[in-house]
Amino acid sequence: MSDAEDLGRTVESIYAPVRGGLDAVDANLRRLASESGLLGDASLLDHALVSGGKKVRPAVTLLAGASRPGREDVLVTMATAVELLHIASLIHDDSVDQAETRRGRRTVSRQWGENVALLLGDYIFATSAVFVCDTGDIGVVRRFSETITELARGELAEQFSIHDWGQTVEAYNQRIYDKTASLFTTAAEAGARLSGAPDDEVEAFKSYGYNLGMAFQIMDDVLDFRGTEAELGKPVGADLLQGILTLPALLFAAAHPDDPVVRRLREGSTARKDLQAFVELVGASSVIAETETVMDGYRQAAREALAGLPDTEPHRSLDALTDYIGRRRS
Amino acid sequence: MSDAEDLGRTVESIYAPVRGGLDAVDANLRRLASESGLLGDASLLDHALVSGGKKVRPAVTLLAGASRPGREDVLVTMATAVELLHIASLIHDDSVDQAETRRGRRTVSRQWGENVALLLGDYIFATSAVFVCDTGDIGVVRRFSETITELARGELAEQFSIHDWGQTVEAYNQRIYDKTASLFTTAAEAGARLSGAPDDEVEAFKSYGYNLGMAFQIMDDVLDFRGTEAELGKPVGADLLQGILTLPALLFAAAHPDDPVVRRLREGSTARKDLQAFVELVGASSVIAETETVMDGYRQAAREALAGLPDTEPHRSLDALTDYIGRRRS
Repeated sequence: MSDAEDLGRTVESIYAPVRGGLDAVDANLRRLASESGLLGDASLLDHALVSGGKKVRPAVTLLAGASRPGREDVLVTMATAVELLHIASLIHDDSVDQAETRRGRRTVSRQWGENVALLLGDYIFATSAVFVCDTGDIGVVRRFSETITELARGELAEQFSIHDWGQTVEAYNQRIYDKTASLFTTAAEAGARLSGAPDDEVEAFKSYGYNLGMAFQIMDDVLDFRGTEAELGKPVGADLLQGILTLPALLFAAAHPDDPVVRRLREGSTARKDLQAFVELVGASSVIAETETVMDGYRQAAREALAGLPDTEPHRSLDALTDYIGRRRS
Repeated sequence: MSDAEDLGRTVESIYAPVRGGLDAVDANLRRLASESGLLGDASLLDHALVSGGKKVRPAVTLLAGASRPGREDVLVTMATAVELLHIASLIHDDSVDQAETRRGRRTVSRQWGENVALLLGDYIFATSAVFVCDTGDIGVVRRFSETITELARGELAEQFSIHDWGQTVEAYNQRIYDKTASLFTTAAEAGARLSGAPDDEVEAFKSYGYNLGMAFQIMDDVLDFRGTEAELGKPVGADLLQGILTLPALLFAAAHPDDPVVRRLREGSTARKDLQAFVELVGASSVIAETETVMDGYRQAAREALAGLPDTEPHRSLDALTDYIGRRRS
C-alpha cells in the first residue's frame, strides 16, 4: 500500500462516525450547483462547488457535534456553511496568487477570468452566510461573519508583508490564525455549541480547533519547502518565490544572518536566483525539523484540549485528526 | 442657486428627520477606519470608509424606522451595515470595471492594486455582516446575506451578458433588481421591521424600497447617456462602451433594427467607433424619455406603497426621495 493510499484510508476511518453528515454536505453543494440559472454560466458553480477536496473543516464541525445526538440536521447546515466559506476563500486566494490549478483543475480565475472569480467568490461567501443563518443561532452567525473578516485581514496582511524580512514571528502567528486557524476554531466551536454542549465543553472544542488550525497551516508552510512538485501540485517554495515569508523562512533567516543569500534578500533582492537558492537552503536545513517541533506543540495542545471529554468514537476521530495533520503530504 | 446646490439642499431637508442617525452612521464608519491596525496599511480603511457619498441607502433604513421611536440604536446599527455593504460592493465593482476614480478620489484598485481591492472588499462585506448580527434579528440577518448573493449574482450576470444584443428586458430587470433594488428593498424592509412595525407595514416599506431601487438604477442608466462627463465623473456612455447593455440601449436597438449602427453591433461589432455612434444616437433619441417614463412608473409605485401610512415627517421625506431620485444628475 502506498503512503497516499494509506493516508486515504486513515482519513476515511477518521471520518467514519460522520460519513452520513459529510455525504449530506456534498448533497447540499450539488444542489446549490444545480441552482445557478441566474449566474450567467451554468457550469460555473458546478466547477466551484463539486470538486472534491479533503473536507477537513466540515468534518471537524460534524465530529465536534456528533457525541450529542439529535442535532444532525443543524450540524450538516453548519458544516455546509463552513465548507462554502472555505471554497469562497480559495477562489479569491487563487485569484490573488494567480494560481493555475486547484484540486487538479484550472482555477476559476484562469478559466473564467479574475472578474468572474471575484464575483463568484462574493456569491459563495454570501451563500455561506445564508446557510449559517439557518442554524438559528445568532451568536454562531456573528462568529462566522467575524471569521470572514479575519480571513480577509490575514490575506491582506500577507499582501502587505511580501518580501518584508523585518516581520516578526508574532506577526506570522497572527496572520496564520487569521487566514487558517480562525475558521478551524469556528468550525469546532460551532459544532459543539450547536449540538448543545455546555460552555466549558464548547471552550475545549474551540481550543482544539485553534490548535489544529495553527498546526494545519504550519504543516502547509513546511510542505512548501519539503514536498515535491508532484505531491504539492505547485512548485516547491511557491510561497517564498512570491515573497510570502513563512515560519521556516523566518527561522532560517534569523539563524543565519551572515549567509550571503540571506544577506542579499534582507538587502532587498527579489531575484529569482536568490529566492530559489534560499528555498534549497531552508529545505536542507534543520529549521524544517524545528518548525515541525513548533507544529507538534500545537498538535499536542489540540489533543490535550479534548483530554477531559468522554471517550466517544467522534472524539477519538478528532484525536486521530491531529496525527493525520502532521503526516499529510499535500 | 445652481441646480447642484438646489439638489444638495433638497437632500439635506429630506434627511433632516434622521440627521442624528446619519451622523451616528458616519461616526461608526470613522471608528472602524481607526481600528485597521492589523490590515497592513492604516490609510486603507480610512480611504474606503470615510469618503462621503450620498448615503441614500442608510437614510432609507433610518427613515423607514423613524416613525416608531425607541429603536434608534438598532436602526443606526442596521443603517451602518447597509452602508458598509454598499461600500464593499463599490470597491469590488470598481475593480471589475477598472474604474479610475470614485467620489473624486482614486479607486482602491487603482491606488493599491486589484488584490488589495478584492481582499478589502471581502473584509468590508464581512464587517457589514457582523454589524447586522448586532441588530439581534436573525430574519433580518438572513435577508441581508441573501442581498449580498443577489448583488454578486447581478454583477455576474452583467459580466456574462456583455455585448449580448439578444438579451431581454426581463433579463435587464432581473439584473438591476439583483445589483441595486435588492439592497434598497432590504434597507427599507429592515428599517421598518426593526422599528417594530406590523407585517403589513413592513410589506409596504419593502415595496417602497423595491420600486425606489428600480427607479434609482434606471436613472443611473439614463444618466449614462444623458449626463455630461463633468457631472458623471466618467465618460458619457461608459457602460455601453464596456459592452453593458441597459434599458435605453435595448429599447433603441429594438425600435431601430435597420439602423446601420444597430445592425453592425448586433452582428458582433465591438468597435469603439460603432459604440460611440450608438451612444450619440441613443442620447438624442426618444428612448431617453421612454426610459424615464418607465422610471416614473417605479417612482409612482414607490409613492403609492406608502400612501396608506400615517402622515409623519419621515414618511414625507421618503415620498420626497422618490422625487429627488428622478432629478439627480450624478
